[in-house]
Amino acid sequence: MQVTFLGTSSGVPSRSRNVSAIALRLPQRADLWLFDCGEATQHQFLRSELRVSQLRRIFITHMHGDHVFGLPGLLASLGMAGTCQGVDLYGPTPLEPFVTGALQHSATRIGYPLRFHPVERAAADGTPLLQDGELTVTCAPLKHRVPAYGYRVQQCERPGRFDIAKARAMGLPPGPEFARLKAGETVTFADGRSVDGRSLCGPSQPGLSLVYCTDTVFSESAVALARGADLLIHEATFSHRDAGMAYQRQHSTSTMAAQTAAEAGVKQLAMTHLSPRYVPGAQESPDDLLQEARTIFSNTVLAKDFLSLEVGNQACNSL
Amino acid sequence: MQVTFLGTSSGVPSRSRNVSAIALRLPQRADLWLFDCGEATQHQFLRSELRVSQLRRIFITHMHGDHVFGLPGLLASLGMAGTCQGVDLYGPTPLEPFVTGALQHSATRIGYPLRFHPVERAAADGTPLLQDGELTVTCAPLKHRVPAYGYRVQQCERPGRFDIAKARAMGLPPGPEFARLKAGETVTFADGRSVDGRSLCGPSQPGLSLVYCTDTVFSESAVALARGADLLIHEATFSHRDAGMAYQRQHSTSTMAAQTAAEAGVKQLAMTHLSPRYVPGAQESPDDLLQEARTIFSNTVLAKDFLSLEVGNQACNSL
Repeated sequence: MQVTFLGTSSGVPSRSRNVSAIALRLPQRADLWLFDCGEATQHQFLRSELRVSQLRRIFITHMHGDHVFGLPGLLASLGMAGTCQGVDLYGPTPLEPFVTGALQHSATRIGYPLRFHPVERAAADGTPLLQDGELTVTCAPLKHRVPAYGYRVQQCERPGRFDIAKARAMGLPPGPEFARLKAGETVTFADGRSVDGRSLCGPSQPGLSLVYCTDTVFSESAVALARGADLLIHEATFSHRDAGMAYQRQHSTSTMAAQTAAEAGVKQLAMTHLSPRYVPGAQESPDDLLQEARTIFSNTVLAKDFLSLEVGNQACNSL
Repeated sequence: MQVTFLGTSSGVPSRSRNVSAIALRLPQRADLWLFDCGEATQHQFLRSELRVSQLRRIFITHMHGDHVFGLPGLLASLGMAGTCQGVDLYGPTPLEPFVTGALQHSATRIGYPLRFHPVERAAADGTPLLQDGELTVTCAPLKHRVPAYGYRVQQCERPGRFDIAKARAMGLPPGPEFARLKAGETVTFADGRSVDGRSLCGPSQPGLSLVYCTDTVFSESAVALARGADLLIHEATFSHRDAGMAYQRQHSTSTMAAQTAAEAGVKQLAMTHLSPRYVPGAQESPDDLLQEARTIFSNTVLAKDFLSLEVGNQACNSL
């Protein structure tokens, strides 16, 4: 799984950071998922190596404009390209009237199915939003001025390493049966032997996991959602010194993001959604927020537009 | 009056051209007007020297997404800046439910007044949309797949040159009375003399005029609206060879834009809203469209993002 940040500013775009959007490339399939879609997300796709034509699912954390105002244009452009097979949208209930209203008032006929999936119930009772055999997506309520939801993408447990030398030593004939043994199935061979694939595989590996939490002030629910994740992407709108504003506006400081990462025991934290007030040369810079976070959780990185992180490669990403 | 193109692509943004928006700087006041507001217009402001805080009026030609999807984000950002005194929006009737719907669903409170002015009646009966003593704005229906309107900004007639030498020769005392004489008023001086300012001014000058027509196939109504204008900005989505598509989609070719300019007797034509299919190196390039137009109307320029044109300086702008 590879994450690419397409927008890392909070509230308004700046010259160097667009408003929120994150693309997720999935392994071994040509699917692209999007988390949030601030204005000009389709423009950011044009500037990246990602192919918007591969977009299949969009997850929206909350309805504030800096997270959704790019949706009508992106969906309309997908329609004009004429190759989209359909898009599933997950988010708060007002997502559907917002999108359909914008498309109707602008007389936009997109020509492919849009399927809306309100997330409130799944967030309340913890049931998965999506399970496709390889990936499970769950969500949880955050703490913001409007209903907001964090998302967790969890890869299923992966079978352990197949011991090909042992299989050969047993005289098993190589072929399509090896793939079935590797997947843990029991296979009956031509000589009548029945072999349990699990006996030829090492211990199964936990799947990779990615958690995205924005917009929110520090929240125990975010800690629970992020438990043990390989990568936690968490908002850090304000510096520790501006914690007063963070509480007032229900956003996180750098230290709240780090505290969430530490309490959840994640492997890596990526901070995003920075206030445009923090720029190099200002009283506090993005680097100051990064240093604040690292005093609490050392494996922290600061997102910037077009940064890509490989989930499951968190040690390498740390500096 | 200075025009700056903020988006010159039709339908979808490209890497070099954003979707439609044009800013108009007005002489002798710190007001900025905007014509159309495609997605990421606020981002284009960030990349220009224009100050979005000076925005007072927005005129929308029609409701297609590439002309309006930048409005919610721009209005929200103006609200966050906290300095806006109010914005007047002119356009088709669905403009109001589109904007208010987007702001409501995203829980955006902008904190300044938005005043909506539907343009259908003014377009039908030719009455001005706006007259402020210096400028008159009129509009006219165009021919597109949805209701679309062209706009004309007409400066009022300007008084002729004040003959200061003649006033001095008459022994008139310089002072604030000179400004009144210059404006064509009759002034009574301390010595009892009553002087008609018009007798000291040369012949009055016609005001400058700017006309913006998009989206439309060739239309007599556009010709009438553009009559004698200093600058006509007209869409040219397609090349002459692609006229079939132009008629089918109710857009103009380069030659239709030039024909409108020639029939209306304008001083200069600027073509915008080019299909992204025309790029340098493709079968036909933007330069090909320009050459096609110039065979019909020689004083034609091709707009590109961030090009500025001074209205009333059309001879200089021609190459």
